[in-house]
Formats: sequence, structure tokens, C-alpha cells
Amino acid sequence: MTATEETQDVPWGDVTPDAARRLMVAAVEAFAERGYHATTTRDIAGRAGMSPAALYIHYKTKEELLHKISTLGHTKAVNILATAADADGTAADRLAQAVRSFVIWHAGHHTTARVVQYELDALDAEHRAEVVQLRRQCDAAVRRILDDGVKSGEFEVPDIPGATLAVLSLCIDVARWFNVQGRRTPDEVGASYADLVLRMVGARPRS
Amino acid sequence: MTATEETQDVPWGDVTPDAARRLMVAAVEAFAERGYHATTTRDIAGRAGMSPAALYIHYKTKEELLHKISTLGHTKAVNILATAADADGTAADRLAQAVRSFVIWHAGHHTTARVVQYELDALDAEHRAEVVQLRRQCDAAVRRILDDGVKSGEFEVPDIPGATLAVLSLCIDVARWFNVQGRRTPDEVGASYADLVLRMVGARPRS
Repeated sequence: MTATEETQDVPWGDVTPDAARRLMVAAVEAFAERGYHATTTRDIAGRAGMSPAALYIHYKTKEELLHKISTLGHTKAVNILATAADADGTAADRLAQAVRSFVIWHAGHHTTARVVQYELDALDAEHRAEVVQLRRQCDAAVRRILDDGVKSGEFEVPDIPGATLAVLSLCIDVARWFNVQGRRTPDEVGASYADLVLRMVGARPRS
Repeated sequence: MTATEETQDVPWGDVTPDAARRLMVAAVEAFAERGYHATTTRDIAGRAGMSPAALYIHYKTKEELLHKISTLGHTKAVNILATAADADGTAADRLAQAVRSFVIWHAGHHTTARVVQYELDALDAEHRAEVVQLRRQCDAAVRRILDDGVKSGEFEVPDIPGATLAVLSLCIDVARWFNVQGRRTPDEVGASYADLVLRMVGARPRS
């Protein structure tokens, strides 16, 4: 499990300077391979070809690195889902787009997504509270689409909070099982999952 | 996150002698809290109130403990799904039962399930191959129900392997998000997910 999954675009391209960016890439790799608690800042610096002292210029603690990774990952998730929720089109179009793009992100960035999802408990209380807020925004975006679809008569959903949770869960778990050597591309999984989710909410698949 | 989730029945009650059982409980707790690689056999022995020497009487390595936890967890999963697949009733009845019982297990044993799912890469090659075989049996049980439902005209599933993967993924991810302090009981999640999955395969919910 390496960062090669993310080499098509420059991973964490928004993070500057480049040394700070390379340390984030190294931290994601190390956390994914060994877990947060088994990783030292020395390991991370070494993977990035730097000294521990050079790491401390950019990040005071290992937790600061995890916090940054988690915040950027969750902000991306909010953007993907809110963009789909705010788009034009029917509720079915917007739900299909939300699922497709959220799945493609989790498949294409599965290493980062695993770290973000499985190491939440390692964040300190304040940082965890920030991330929980971002997760509520993800939830709200999907719930908004389901509400709209029920109101317009497109969807039939007896339990909107429960269906919202299931839709997000299905997409997030792609990060666990997705295999770059597997038979399905991220786009194929995204298209297939969009159809499955439309069925879950009682809409007919559009294809 | 502790083993208290499993205190209604004795956790790992089939494992004897009792010292070996207590070490497994301690290992699951430690792996879940700190990750496999950050846990030492000394940590595990300490949690079980034993000396490291006492641990070695029962388990030669930390990997042997993970292997045992993973094998028992996966064997339970195979039993749950094969029992539902082999039961009498319509394909819809059997699929609902498979999902309900698999979800209830993942909610009720979420700490164990997280360890089993997230630490697969820590198994050695031979043990990992054994576990992969058990996972194929889980897959085969669900696929058998979907095949039967398509043949009988109960289900409409364009991509049976893809739908099988999605059904299992949805149930497994319950272990990630389930919270014993949350609003939903394992039974409620199981019932709700059985309905969502029946929709996914193009059957009408029975309720």
C-alpha cells in the first residue's frame, strides 16, 4: 500500500511548501502500513528523506500531521457531497452524482481514506470535534438530497437518517476493499453504486 | 472501546483453557485501541493480568493471536451467511436473514470485527491465504442467494458479483460506525438494512 495510487495528480498538491507536502505523503504511507501509534515522527521524516529536525519545522507533533490529513480529507468529502447536493437537476441526478464522485474519491485515494477513517480516535479532543463537524456536513448534504427526492415524489424512503447513513457507509467502505489490481475501475464502481443507491431510495435506475 | 460489548455472552467462550481465552480478549482490546503493530505481547499479557512467560505457554507469537482471532471471526461470518443461504424460504427471506444476522454480529462485536477487517495485512502469507478462503465462502453464500432470487424471478440484479460485494460491504462497515451509545440497536440496524438490501436487488421490502 503506497502513495502510487495518487501519482496521477500530485498528492496533497495544495500543501506548501513542498517539504510539508512530502511529509504528509510520507505520514499517510506510514500510518496506513503500520498504524498511527506504531509510527514515529522519525519514521515519517525518514520516508520523506528528511531529518527529524526538518520535520519539526513544519509539524510540531505527529498528531498535527494526522489532524492536517484528516481535515483536508474531510474537507474534500464535504466539497464533493455539497457540490452534488447544490447542483441543478432532479434529486435522482444529484444523488447519482454524489455517490459516483464520493466512490471515485474513496477508490482513488483509498490509502488516505483508510487513515482518515480508521485513526479518528487518535485525534485529540479539539481536533476530533472539528472533524465531527465536517462529518455532520457530509451527512447533511446527502440528507438534503434525500429530503428533496421524497418531497418531489422521486424517492420513497421510510427512514431518511438511516438511509443517509447507509449511503455514506457504502461509499466509505470502498476504501477498505478497493484494490488497484482488481477487476473494477473507480469509475465502474461509481456507476454501479449510483444505480444500487437509487434502488435503495426507491427510485428506478436511470439506465 | 473495550470488550464490554461482548459481555452478554462470554467472549470467545469456545476458547479453552480460560487463560488462552482471556489473552484473546486482551489482544482484541489492545489491537483495537493501539493497532497491531503498536501492541506488544507484554501489553497483551499485562491486560490479561499475566506475565509474558504465561502468554507464551498459549501463543508463540503476537501473529498467532491475530491469526486465531481472525480465523474464529471469519468462521463465525461463514456460519452466519451459509446458515441463511441454506435455510428454507424464498430468496428474499434468506437474503433478509443473512443481512439481519450479519449486521447484528458486526454491531454486537464491532471491536473484534474492526480488528479482523483492518489488520488483515498483518497476517503472515499462509494465514492470510486461509482467511482469504473463508472470505470467498462468505462471498459464495451471498452470491448463491442472489443467483437463486434472479432464477426465481424474485430479484433483478444486473451484476451479481458487484451486488454481492456491495451487500457484504454495507454489513461489514457497520463495525466501523456502530456506537453502543447511539440511537439504534443492533436489531434495528439489522431490520433496516435487510429492507435496504432487498431494494438494492430489486425485490420489494416485505414490510
